[in-house]
Amino acid sequence: MKKVGVAILGVGVVGGGTYETLVSHHDFYMKTQQVDITVEAVLDRNIERLQAMGIAEELIAKNIEEIIANPNVDIVIETIGGVDVAKEFVTKALRAAKTVVTSNKELICKYSHELEKIAKRNHCGLYYEASCVGGVPIIRTLLDGVQGNNIHSMMGIVNGTTNYILTKMTQDGTDYAEALQEAQKLGYAEADPTADVEGIDSMYKLSILSSMAFHTKIPYTKIMREGISHIDANDIAFGHEIGYTMKLLAIGKHEGDGVDVRVHPTFIPHNHPLASVNDSFNAVYLQGDAVGDVMLYGRGAGAFPTASAVVSDVIYAATHSELRYSTFKNNAQPESHVKFLSDFTSSYYLRLFIDDRLGALAKITGILGKCGVSIVEISQKPKGMFGANSDRVPLIITTYKTKENSVKNAVAKLNASGLASVEAVIRIES
Amino acid sequence: MKKVGVAILGVGVVGGGTYETLVSHHDFYMKTQQVDITVEAVLDRNIERLQAMGIAEELIAKNIEEIIANPNVDIVIETIGGVDVAKEFVTKALRAAKTVVTSNKELICKYSHELEKIAKRNHCGLYYEASCVGGVPIIRTLLDGVQGNNIHSMMGIVNGTTNYILTKMTQDGTDYAEALQEAQKLGYAEADPTADVEGIDSMYKLSILSSMAFHTKIPYTKIMREGISHIDANDIAFGHEIGYTMKLLAIGKHEGDGVDVRVHPTFIPHNHPLASVNDSFNAVYLQGDAVGDVMLYGRGAGAFPTASAVVSDVIYAATHSELRYSTFKNNAQPESHVKFLSDFTSSYYLRLFIDDRLGALAKITGILGKCGVSIVEISQKPKGMFGANSDRVPLIITTYKTKENSVKNAVAKLNASGLASVEAVIRIES
Repeated sequence: MKKVGVAILGVGVVGGGTYETLVSHHDFYMKTQQVDITVEAVLDRNIERLQAMGIAEELIAKNIEEIIANPNVDIVIETIGGVDVAKEFVTKALRAAKTVVTSNKELICKYSHELEKIAKRNHCGLYYEASCVGGVPIIRTLLDGVQGNNIHSMMGIVNGTTNYILTKMTQDGTDYAEALQEAQKLGYAEADPTADVEGIDSMYKLSILSSMAFHTKIPYTKIMREGISHIDANDIAFGHEIGYTMKLLAIGKHEGDGVDVRVHPTFIPHNHPLASVNDSFNAVYLQGDAVGDVMLYGRGAGAFPTASAVVSDVIYAATHSELRYSTFKNNAQPESHVKFLSDFTSSYYLRLFIDDRLGALAKITGILGKCGVSIVEISQKPKGMFGANSDRVPLIITTYKTKENSVKNAVAKLNASGLASVEAVIRIES
Repeated sequence: MKKVGVAILGVGVVGGGTYETLVSHHDFYMKTQQVDITVEAVLDRNIERLQAMGIAEELIAKNIEEIIANPNVDIVIETIGGVDVAKEFVTKALRAAKTVVTSNKELICKYSHELEKIAKRNHCGLYYEASCVGGVPIIRTLLDGVQGNNIHSMMGIVNGTTNYILTKMTQDGTDYAEALQEAQKLGYAEADPTADVEGIDSMYKLSILSSMAFHTKIPYTKIMREGISHIDANDIAFGHEIGYTMKLLAIGKHEGDGVDVRVHPTFIPHNHPLASVNDSFNAVYLQGDAVGDVMLYGRGAGAFPTASAVVSDVIYAATHSELRYSTFKNNAQPESHVKFLSDFTSSYYLRLFIDDRLGALAKITGILGKCGVSIVEISQKPKGMFGANSDRVPLIITTYKTKENSVKNAVAKLNASGLASVEAVIRIES
């Protein structure tokens, strides 16, 4: 039976879950995968934590050099996070021809091109299923499951924190601040929630997943990003009434040489499969030219779901000898023929405050018309729904598909008109 | 670049879709998968169909021997269906050391043990992603995505015909016969719908998927099976009222050495992810000990979704040199220590007709109590809801978790009591 030794760098939530999974499933993997995987070393600044976990003294490494030099370590698992130490350690491991399995989205998003080059040169593997959407095998699916398809669209709920907050706001009508607080209390959100609520985490994942799906490098700097911290619970409720559920979506679309990548709060129809993905669950919805619609759903975070992805890569690396790298060019830059579209097409939900005077509505719709924005539905709400603005009348407008720039232009003109202020612009996908 | 030649046996719906996908994506696979896949031969009794598809004369083989002898054919795709000719041809291909990719669930369900032996002996591969749930990469996920988990539960909507019929009955209140007719008109159901509506198709798929998930052979003969042809639209409506959606589920549960495998109409809560899988869509819901809940959703049938799975296997076979066979013993029989549980545990929905006389209800609940069946909810419906039985009163009962045999016993006693007749027994999963 094949023997494989692993080292774990960073034994926190994910690293700890990985350690426990590997130890408790050792015999199960011998039986079902014909591979004998043992943890040969662990590395963490917090020695007490390692001891509290009952990890034997002789497994606790003093530094990365000790792990690199250990001939029993075939695979190095990096679950440190961030890009400083993690990048240094991963680089050292790859240079020592050790295959690396990582859960680090920021590292892969920013440096996969560089790290893959080193891996190739040293004939070892670089695996990162756990970097995106936790336990959901989305990377394996893109590489080995739907690889026969030209994928033209990808929409994902890839961040559990924001999905939990939006679910709360939708189901209980709580406002953003309260929902965030509850998420923090439950451990779903960090003390500083910026990376999650501003869509930065989703952006890293979209960069990785869309690069794989579209076979071209999609740098995160090309991704339009908008978070959920400005979302008003009333808009969620208004949208719900007219048939839409709000989700923070990571969206990638690919047609010809045009690519449109963005992270933003989005209304989707209630009957869209993504609309019923609630709480901290994640899902990715793909459209391929042969397979049609495919969705993968599951836990996007947490010790054991993420460990499941890490261990899946370890077993894969241990049982497959081919090393397959991303097929896009090993370069941080996109290929030169790819056009990133900032002026994409979408439908829109707009909430305005308008002056309660005769003729205002006609003038407002006139401005929209001149900007090429056609209205599907318009609905005036009772005065006083928004405390501070109780004098003005909320007006909800949904539009046909139109260009992002046309809507931006219309919003600027409406705000300048003195008749209305545009309070919310939410894109609608179907 | 690696060159791979394929032959397609049976150029019907799936074979035709596969041919077209391979031809139209030839350059795409060269670019994205670094493999040059060409169709070297096709075999079909219906030569005119091949000619109508524009397939060149020189690709049309006269018989299987010609394909076996063709040194340019590395991979044989079997999309004939059934077990007679398909088994003969697949066996011949494997004996000639050609890797086989098949979409044939019946063949794999009944003969994978035998065919894998031949494949092993000849150092070639046997792939069958397309045999289960069309374009949804469920087999790849079980083998390479969630393989780090001990899977303890699997529930799937794995037949599009019955899901279409049940969706119709649920959404429009149509009865079974009418919904079936519509499914036939749309091409979702065959003229003889038996294999679909009686759960035979689902049974084959459950045998394959649960064998892989549970790492032990699950012969289809061990699967309890009940179809949907006896389902009354009123039960769907009654269940809907109390929070349940009806689906034909393929269920596998695995705990210790006990395995419980069954196909039957099932009520699941409206908010269960499987409940919103509608029309002809399919989905498989897994629970693993590390990953927790995972669901895969997509098209379970159709020319191109199924071709996506076939082609995925072809690319996988072309780009991975390891041959990985099912890890359960190559035997048609289950391993001897596995216990198949026919007396499984479930909650139940019961519809009875009861006599409209004093004390009947008390006696009925008494019988249930004596049989160990505890009631969660009981609701009497107005007389006359069922034409022919308009004298008797429909009574709906849902139960706590109980043993299948206790319910069977209770049903027999109720029917023998002269007070009631049990008209529907539907299992509830959560």
